[in-house]
Amino acid sequence: MEGRSIFMIEQNLLPFQFQVFEAKDYLQTCYAIKTMIVRGAGAIGAAAGFAMAQAFLKSSDEKFIQKAKADIEATRPTARNLFYAIERVFSAGLISKENAVSEAQKIADEDAVASQAIGDFGNELIKPGFKIETHCNAGWLAFVDYGTALSPIYKAHNSGKDIFVWVDETRPRSQGARLTAWELQNEGVPHKILPDTAGAWLMSQGKVDMMIVGADRIAANGDTANKIGTFEKAIVAKTFGVPFYVAAPTSTFDLDCKSGSEIIIEERSDEEVLYQTGPDENGDMRTIRVASPGSSAINPAFDVTPTEYITGIITEKGVVKASKESIGRLFR
Amino acid sequence: MEGRSIFMIEQNLLPFQFQVFEAKDYLQTCYAIKTMIVRGAGAIGAAAGFAMAQAFLKSSDEKFIQKAKADIEATRPTARNLFYAIERVFSAGLISKENAVSEAQKIADEDAVASQAIGDFGNELIKPGFKIETHCNAGWLAFVDYGTALSPIYKAHNSGKDIFVWVDETRPRSQGARLTAWELQNEGVPHKILPDTAGAWLMSQGKVDMMIVGADRIAANGDTANKIGTFEKAIVAKTFGVPFYVAAPTSTFDLDCKSGSEIIIEERSDEEVLYQTGPDENGDMRTIRVASPGSSAINPAFDVTPTEYITGIITEKGVVKASKESIGRLFR
Repeated sequence: MEGRSIFMIEQNLLPFQFQVFEAKDYLQTCYAIKTMIVRGAGAIGAAAGFAMAQAFLKSSDEKFIQKAKADIEATRPTARNLFYAIERVFSAGLISKENAVSEAQKIADEDAVASQAIGDFGNELIKPGFKIETHCNAGWLAFVDYGTALSPIYKAHNSGKDIFVWVDETRPRSQGARLTAWELQNEGVPHKILPDTAGAWLMSQGKVDMMIVGADRIAANGDTANKIGTFEKAIVAKTFGVPFYVAAPTSTFDLDCKSGSEIIIEERSDEEVLYQTGPDENGDMRTIRVASPGSSAINPAFDVTPTEYITGIITEKGVVKASKESIGRLFR
Repeated sequence: MEGRSIFMIEQNLLPFQFQVFEAKDYLQTCYAIKTMIVRGAGAIGAAAGFAMAQAFLKSSDEKFIQKAKADIEATRPTARNLFYAIERVFSAGLISKENAVSEAQKIADEDAVASQAIGDFGNELIKPGFKIETHCNAGWLAFVDYGTALSPIYKAHNSGKDIFVWVDETRPRSQGARLTAWELQNEGVPHKILPDTAGAWLMSQGKVDMMIVGADRIAANGDTANKIGTFEKAIVAKTFGVPFYVAAPTSTFDLDCKSGSEIIIEERSDEEVLYQTGPDENGDMRTIRVASPGSSAINPAFDVTPTEYITGIITEKGVVKASKESIGRLFR
């Protein structure tokens, strides 16, 4: 945050173009969250916190603040970190607008610290030579720094463990093929992209030792909402006895939500399934239709993986079982 | 086949453009099979049979014929119908070139008749109101007529059963989103496209009553090679108790192949994963990069679904269990 503006990398154009988006007020930040200029659990949380602070900087009128809060909450209904950050900055802002700004900054800083700790705890689970599959992007682009699912991978790679990463393409928005692959390339981590449904075949050949994914909301019992397809991956991993880990900071847990059935799943426009954008051979960005013209699609942004499919949850306080009791102890 | 030429719909451009490809000799037909101008189990078989006939029309020199046979076989190693057709036309051609041509035509005709029978037997499994998920394209584009997986769906729809079809996008080549959706649209069958890994979520909500897929090669014990992702879909279907059917003519069975572990899986270029082609907003066909520029991908064209995941195989002789005994009885 500089002055009243928030600056974000335009993730929709990555890795093909690097543009910075400036959100001058909370409504522009809402737009950035909704259109996924900024995306990923932690980064959404940080942006939402700053958006709430932007609202307080504009006016402390109660009606205005309540409307702003509702507007920000409505951007991505499944994302727990969004609500978490809004609540904290809202409470701080009731004291003073300076408090709101510093609280928003504090949330972003905490996110970075948590990512590092998640990396350290997760790294302990990774053996040398491991082949690790991941879905979507839960790396440094998705968080303020380092990320969740990719944080243990970076730590393992940097400690010389000779790991390899299988990157699920992650349709419809291809965050795996575009963002995770790009991050890994930048960090020098050996990896290959795979079509989303090739995982079962890889696992049947013994080519996957572990899966790590991020989370957008974790219920009190451990049920985990994450990118569409995560549930399917977890079922397949269980079938082959491949350990399936969720990596998330405690700010992603929603103890008011008893189980996954209470989690609202965001439905996004089917144009994300029917069209794809990317550079042509001249580097010009083009949007093309990739589906039959007369047909429509469904586009649930997330699914919920039930606790029985999750080997463990890697948090900044340690690795816990996906159960009500273990999760409860995290917050005592 | 007209004269010495074979005419095929250029499936790579469908449904955006309609072009007919003329293969004037067997090598051009090989090119069409390899580049997927013609694709789908039955259509590949028919094309391969005609290619073998084209070779005999050119020369009956033994060395030439043996080389042609090897060339055609090398185009798509996983496709059983290809080898089936080559063998039959090769034997016929040893008698006379006219025999080769009529045998190739006979195979194509048999394929159309088998598709109809598969539709009738499969339709008996479909209850009114069923929501059916399918993967890839096993419709009339993939066969000489009517198709396999889609044949029961067309029969059910035409008999007024009020069915609905969930169409897996089927990355990397999106045969579901492009071809199956287009076929269903043309036939007036209600349907929606879904991202490939959204199936588990749909099934967990009770929104899928049945899955039907095609097959590229079925081993003597029932293990089935089909489009990459089929195995994953079968695992997910079993988890939710959703019946999982394979639809294929007896020409897709390979009794010399004892089990799935003997099936050779074709690896295709990773450019199919990294790039996508489709029309831009002006209708001009564009190829765009959909993955991070520095990264590569794997692209196994098929996977093998073990027999224990298959509820039944719908053939032109009836529905059989995916077991050695039941399959053996088909060929008695």
